[in-house]
Amino acid sequence: MAAQRITVYSAKVELALKESGLSYKRFEIDLQNKPEWYAPKVNPASKVPAIAYGGPDTEPENPSPESTKIAESYVLLEFIADLVQSSKPLLPATPVGRAQARFFIETATSKFVTPWYSSVSKGDDPSGVLPAIDAIQDLLPPQGGYAVGNDWTIADAAITPFLARALVTFKHDIGAYDEGEGKKVWELLQTDSKYARFRKYYADVTSRQSFKETFFEDIIVEGFSKRFGETRAAKKAASAS
Amino acid sequence: MAAQRITVYSAKVELALKESGLSYKRFEIDLQNKPEWYAPKVNPASKVPAIAYGGPDTEPENPSPESTKIAESYVLLEFIADLVQSSKPLLPATPVGRAQARFFIETATSKFVTPWYSSVSKGDDPSGVLPAIDAIQDLLPPQGGYAVGNDWTIADAAITPFLARALVTFKHDIGAYDEGEGKKVWELLQTDSKYARFRKYYADVTSRQSFKETFFEDIIVEGFSKRFGETRAAKKAASAS
Ligand SMILES: N[C@@H](CCC(=O)N[C@@H](CS)C(=O)NCC(=O)O)C(=O)O
Ligand SMILES: N[C@@H](CCC(=O)N[C@@H](CS)C(=O)NCC(=O)O)C(=O)O
Repeated sequence: MAAQRITVYSAKVELALKESGLSYKRFEIDLQNKPEWYAPKVNPASKVPAIAYGGPDTEPENPSPESTKIAESYVLLEFIADLVQSSKPLLPATPVGRAQARFFIETATSKFVTPWYSSVSKGDDPSGVLPAIDAIQDLLPPQGGYAVGNDWTIADAAITPFLARALVTFKHDIGAYDEGEGKKVWELLQTDSKYARFRKYYADVTSRQSFKETFFEDIIVEGFSKRFGETRAAKKAASAS
Repeated sequence: MAAQRITVYSAKVELALKESGLSYKRFEIDLQNKPEWYAPKVNPASKVPAIAYGGPDTEPENPSPESTKIAESYVLLEFIADLVQSSKPLLPATPVGRAQARFFIETATSKFVTPWYSSVSKGDDPSGVLPAIDAIQDLLPPQGGYAVGNDWTIADAAITPFLARALVTFKHDIGAYDEGEGKKVWELLQTDSKYARFRKYYADVTSRQSFKETFFEDIIVEGFSKRFGETRAAKKAASAS
């Protein structure tokens, strides 16, 4: 079977595509200003990420009705792993290994994403992510390696983009939380011996070529500053009045 | 590789095990009165379902440290599908077909479970499940068949137990919602032409041998009556005082 065309909307699953070795086009959807063709032509739920798969060669802005549209991050990661199952395994080979990878995805994302995002967007205490980091550390192989072993898998693909966004926003203290609280969590994660295994893991996933080619700190800083830069001031003003 | 022993805790993924043809033991955990060995020996999160896989032959009440313990419904369904991948496919063969099955699981369960359970346990209007039924109908192949085609898959395994529990509780008007409201939704689903496709689907999944061997209406009626039989009265008394 010849390789089908892939267009991915959003960088969220790009890491897995990069590691898969498949070729693809990426088109970034501005969530604050969604193009009007996106919901009718790509994802009726109007969310990212999504993939258009197969069909004729078109511009990302003009997806063909002949391509299959697929949504939901988790579904997309499994899809990418299925596409390259024999050429580039992105999941362990055994049923038990695969279950461990899926359990890692479920646990890490369900525990981490909400406290991080609610701190940045609503001003909850950034230290709310620490129990999730503890849970992730507990799942990591103690002696080193990726989420579920020596090989990078879609379990790493699922959590890395969230960890990287969180660490960058905290490092730059960007978000609706009280001034300095993000930086405090960032410093704790850099220095506390309790988080040594997490630091090693974060260094391992972010030093991969796939990460360097798909993640840009300055874009994250700019995007989140734009969206949440004024939320802290607005919250302060509201609570003072 | 010889088949490994499987012990499943809870009936929630038993449907998929039955369809897989694997042999297994089932042990029901009383959630109102959890055995004290369950969290330390099977699932530290203390939730069902979970599976103990491999290891020596022991009683379910005495799981061996040598068996692998796996939790999370979705992870377990994929695990069962992986175990019998070649002998009894429980997922479509193509990456696109598999993505459709996973999208069905994600959509159907995320939309249906919360409104159903909050009606039964907290008294929210049972008609809150109708948008989820619309969404499920929209995903079903219009001409008939199972969740994602002619073959029964883990997509059917994921939603059937919830649909069956919901229809039985509504039919018997069991739950914290106002008297008669469950029955009303049940009758609508039985008679409204709008739900014809859903009815056909429900008849198809519940007429399978695997369902008949794992689902017992009287046990559901008894269990939910015991748990929520007094919630409606208590709610009424509280709102009257
Ligand atoms: N369950 C979905 C959630 C997708 C989601 O909520 N995406 C956000 C961005 S991370 C989005 O598209 N938000 C835009 C909106 O809701 O308008 C997934 O995992 O893909
Ligand atoms: N995400 C889990 C949820 C499991 C879950 O919440 N199970 C409920 C029963 S359906 C439970 O074990 N509740 C017992 C408790 O929380 O004490 C899954 O899908 O398996």
